Amino acid sequence: MMRSISIFGATGSVGQSTLDLVRRNRDEWRVVALTANGNVAELAALAREFRPEVAVVADAGCEALLAHALAGEGIAVAAGEAALVEAAKLGADVTMAAIVGCAGLAPTMAAIECGKTVALANKESLVAAGELMMAAARASGATILPVDSEHNAIFQCLSGDLDRVAKITLTASGGPFRTFSHNEMGSVTPEQAVAHPNWSMGAKISVDSATMMNKGLELIEAYHLFPVGLARLDIIVHPQSVVHSMVEYVDGSTIAQLGPADMRVPIASALAWPDRMATPCSPLDLAKLARLEFEAPDFERFPALTLARAAIAEGGGRPAQLNAANEVAVAAFLDRRIGFLDIAAISARLFDETAPIAPHSLHDVFNLDRESRARAEQLVVTFAKA
Amino acid sequence: MMRSISIFGATGSVGQSTLDLVRRNRDEWRVVALTANGNVAELAALAREFRPEVAVVADAGCEALLAHALAGEGIAVAAGEAALVEAAKLGADVTMAAIVGCAGLAPTMAAIECGKTVALANKESLVAAGELMMAAARASGATILPVDSEHNAIFQCLSGDLDRVAKITLTASGGPFRTFSHNEMGSVTPEQAVAHPNWSMGAKISVDSATMMNKGLELIEAYHLFPVGLARLDIIVHPQSVVHSMVEYVDGSTIAQLGPADMRVPIASALAWPDRMATPCSPLDLAKLARLEFEAPDFERFPALTLARAAIAEGGGRPAQLNAANEVAVAAFLDRRIGFLDIAAISARLFDETAPIAPHSLHDVFNLDRESRARAEQLVVTFAKA
Repeated sequence: MMRSISIFGATGSVGQSTLDLVRRNRDEWRVVALTANGNVAELAALAREFRPEVAVVADAGCEALLAHALAGEGIAVAAGEAALVEAAKLGADVTMAAIVGCAGLAPTMAAIECGKTVALANKESLVAAGELMMAAARASGATILPVDSEHNAIFQCLSGDLDRVAKITLTASGGPFRTFSHNEMGSVTPEQAVAHPNWSMGAKISVDSATMMNKGLELIEAYHLFPVGLARLDIIVHPQSVVHSMVEYVDGSTIAQLGPADMRVPIASALAWPDRMATPCSPLDLAKLARLEFEAPDFERFPALTLARAAIAEGGGRPAQLNAANEVAVAAFLDRRIGFLDIAAISARLFDETAPIAPHSLHDVFNLDRESRARAEQLVVTFAKA
Repeated sequence: MMRSISIFGATGSVGQSTLDLVRRNRDEWRVVALTANGNVAELAALAREFRPEVAVVADAGCEALLAHALAGEGIAVAAGEAALVEAAKLGADVTMAAIVGCAGLAPTMAAIECGKTVALANKESLVAAGELMMAAARASGATILPVDSEHNAIFQCLSGDLDRVAKITLTASGGPFRTFSHNEMGSVTPEQAVAHPNWSMGAKISVDSATMMNKGLELIEAYHLFPVGLARLDIIVHPQSVVHSMVEYVDGSTIAQLGPADMRVPIASALAWPDRMATPCSPLDLAKLARLEFEAPDFERFPALTLARAAIAEGGGRPAQLNAANEVAVAAFLDRRIGFLDIAAISARLFDETAPIAPHSLHDVFNLDRESRARAEQLVVTFAKA
């Protein structure tokens, strides 16, 4: 049976992995919309290959360039945020929300408000606007299929009533500084921080892995996606990153999802859900892996985890604030303006200074994001001088 | 909602664990029938506690004793195999088939033929009569819920179409001789063989674990329960026995069930299915366990695995023959009449000598079982002299 898909953020890593799967099953998928931030050449090439109804570039200044590149192809062209939102409302069986950052919020919310099936790879949707997104999904009947490997794993392991869940445990690689002392972490360099052992990924995400803020943000996402409450959400360090997460039930059974470090696995799971589709990913060879290790996370050495738990417990605008401040602090660390330990310290300072009210709209979220970034920039200057 | 249950083999280990769970949820369960082989005192005590409609003792000679023990209790009393079969036909939401050995075949088949939901703990039903049992279940619409920890794990991990399953992998502890050479295994004693590291269990099952015949027999059971074909059934050695089995899908996802070494976990899973019920089992503490190890099984050192695969491939009466010959050989090993390596060698010799035809009825299965035991006894004498 032919199914239709729209891909928001088609030129990014998740978008390209999604299109790789669509390419391998070309006769099963019809592409409705493809969007990109500003990479017109790549977007045009993908549009020529996948023949969507519409190609949208977020940067409004690129519209003419895209129109030129696709002239005579019979593919509609649009640009700007309003065009992204309109594209999100087009009829598609699955909407892949893979735009990176806050730019993904508006189109993702539009798809959710239309009651669509949304494969969600945009972290900010749940971290910064989790309550709004989930409330919109409940109101519209939208289905949210998480694409992040951990949340997709949990989604695969969950069945039945959430009352029967004893605990949801996210696994964390522990990052490159898993065994470092607090003092050793004080002097680590950006080069050390971006060397992630299991996944190849961008500098920002690598640093988040090194501080374990990635896991803190994922805990926030999990809190919204799987409403079992903070007390039933846990994190375990698992350096091999083979078990992607697990769900323990009241009978003592734990169901875990394991897989290779290849984003096409969770993407395929979301695209085909509730069915399964084949991927070309190399299957796990546990006998070759030989050993899976687990240890409790250290909340003292990794204060990002404590911050994330506090953000969940305090709720309101805290998660959006944490997300914004962390992004500013990580950029400052990568620029060698502050030290590694300052990254979490800046968010902690911001938490101490302000208790933001809960955002009631995406507009509130954007304002809070902007304010938090501005204040975090000031704190970077303070920390850099210290 | 009140549910009803019959427990066949109530005084055995699985029966007692089942009743422990019923006892903890006394207002949710009504007990229809309780049966035992010959332990009248224990059966009567359980009947007084759980107030079934009927208590049945398999040993017909024990009827008067049971009637005396339950006089005036208002509980019907019966004895003998025909009475077991009649009890299996009584209306119960779940029938726990936990009789050990071939004595469990007839009542289990009766429950399946009535289209009941059968929690299956009797291994012989699937090993010796798998094709007959599964054909009866297809014909009657019976639901078979496996209780064995490995098969229950697979059942929990399976969802959707079997076409989407890439591989089902049973985990095996590898037993106490996992690292022994062939020569070292030649001189092991019954005392060494019955010391299982992870589960406390009877001598026969412990020896089966040491030869890995238990895993071979479980492979046969899995072959019948989950018809994906032999090529998609695998075994992996996992000394910690924390992962009880796993299912790999075509997208590269592997779903695994993990749990403590407590039979109440799979029993609760079967009793409550498709819901979950709480157990008092200590949950897993993976951080404390710290390490899960995996290695490929060695078919050279553990010929029982090769025999089981051959029994599946050749089909017909082979699995029943293997089960019978193995039981005789294990008993002879425990009696110090033959060596450890002779256990598998006796089944292999029997395979070489005879190719039994497929049993078409339980009667055929019983005859084949008897013949195979008789021939295996002769082979024990031959091997003992050698």
